[in-house]
Amino acid sequence: MKRSEVPVDAPPRASRKVDSIVIVNTGNGKGKSTAAFGTVLRAVARGWKVCVIQFIKSEKWKVGERDAALRLGVEWWTIGDGFTWDSRNMERTEAIAREAWRVAKEKIGSGDYGLVVLDEITYPMNWGWVPIADAISAIRSRPRTVSVIATGRDAPPELIDIADTVTEMRNHKHAYDSGVKAIRGIDF
Amino acid sequence: MKRSEVPVDAPPRASRKVDSIVIVNTGNGKGKSTAAFGTVLRAVARGWKVCVIQFIKSEKWKVGERDAALRLGVEWWTIGDGFTWDSRNMERTEAIAREAWRVAKEKIGSGDYGLVVLDEITYPMNWGWVPIADAISAIRSRPRTVSVIATGRDAPPELIDIADTVTEMRNHKHAYDSGVKAIRGIDF
Repeated sequence: MKRSEVPVDAPPRASRKVDSIVIVNTGNGKGKSTAAFGTVLRAVARGWKVCVIQFIKSEKWKVGERDAALRLGVEWWTIGDGFTWDSRNMERTEAIAREAWRVAKEKIGSGDYGLVVLDEITYPMNWGWVPIADAISAIRSRPRTVSVIATGRDAPPELIDIADTVTEMRNHKHAYDSGVKAIRGIDF
Repeated sequence: MKRSEVPVDAPPRASRKVDSIVIVNTGNGKGKSTAAFGTVLRAVARGWKVCVIQFIKSEKWKVGERDAALRLGVEWWTIGDGFTWDSRNMERTEAIAREAWRVAKEKIGSGDYGLVVLDEITYPMNWGWVPIADAISAIRSRPRTVSVIATGRDAPPELIDIADTVTEMRNHKHAYDSGVKAIRGIDF
């Protein structure tokens, strides 16, 4: 049974060539970080240097994507302190986020990377730990060839403003909501 | 400036353990296939056998994600015939899609893979090329340990029904819409 017509007309073509873009993956659904990691695959395949900075995940979490990315030569910094509700010292957790931003800013500004992923950066931005104006300025004034992907829920409007591509990952259904535990190999 | 409170209470925990799940990435935004490829990174890192079947992309398209995935040992089948509007023989294009589905069904049923990605399968489903009832039945009756990710716009309701996790990638802004060409290393 046919539900839609097979498209036979090509959509209009884009013509402007740029050296880098800013992508934001936000929303309450699955796939924000995961899509960033998928883009890492593409960047690596083209021979780019890639750097991932994780603002929430801590070194203690053994996540699969990190292992696989390291095998592909990606530089991967896990500078988070874990979930805030597990924190025993919120000042330390905040200091760790600020340190992650210091590293991220340096990586972006260095011009050494074709792609820098700021994974879950929106949370410390919204909590006042990563100064929004400073982050926006570092991303806007980045070297010409550095693309940036920022992920996390509730992306600040200033970040959305400077992004070229913004996708909202919207949750329609989530296994977790029906009580299903995260699966090793799929969710982490 | 603080825009939201730091969460200090843990959300409720899920408790049900399952061996596999069905994920659907749909919507008009960027990140449907990309998130599937990010999940491939996780699956590979856990030592799973992974198979990707692409229903639209043709062998002629040299996409970066394929190269990087092959380096990680992923089995990658590109059985599409390209964009339908480039087709010079729509019957052949349809036959290729049917062949892709034959391969996909065999891969799912074999039980050899921890993860099978059906990339852009929703299009041939909606065009009547991949029989929806047959696809639903193959996915529902899959071996216990095989997870499936299906991607593409306008996922058929029957597919959404049997999925555990459904994310709509919603386009808020796309570089392409402001005339920016796809970037090698980011978009492919």
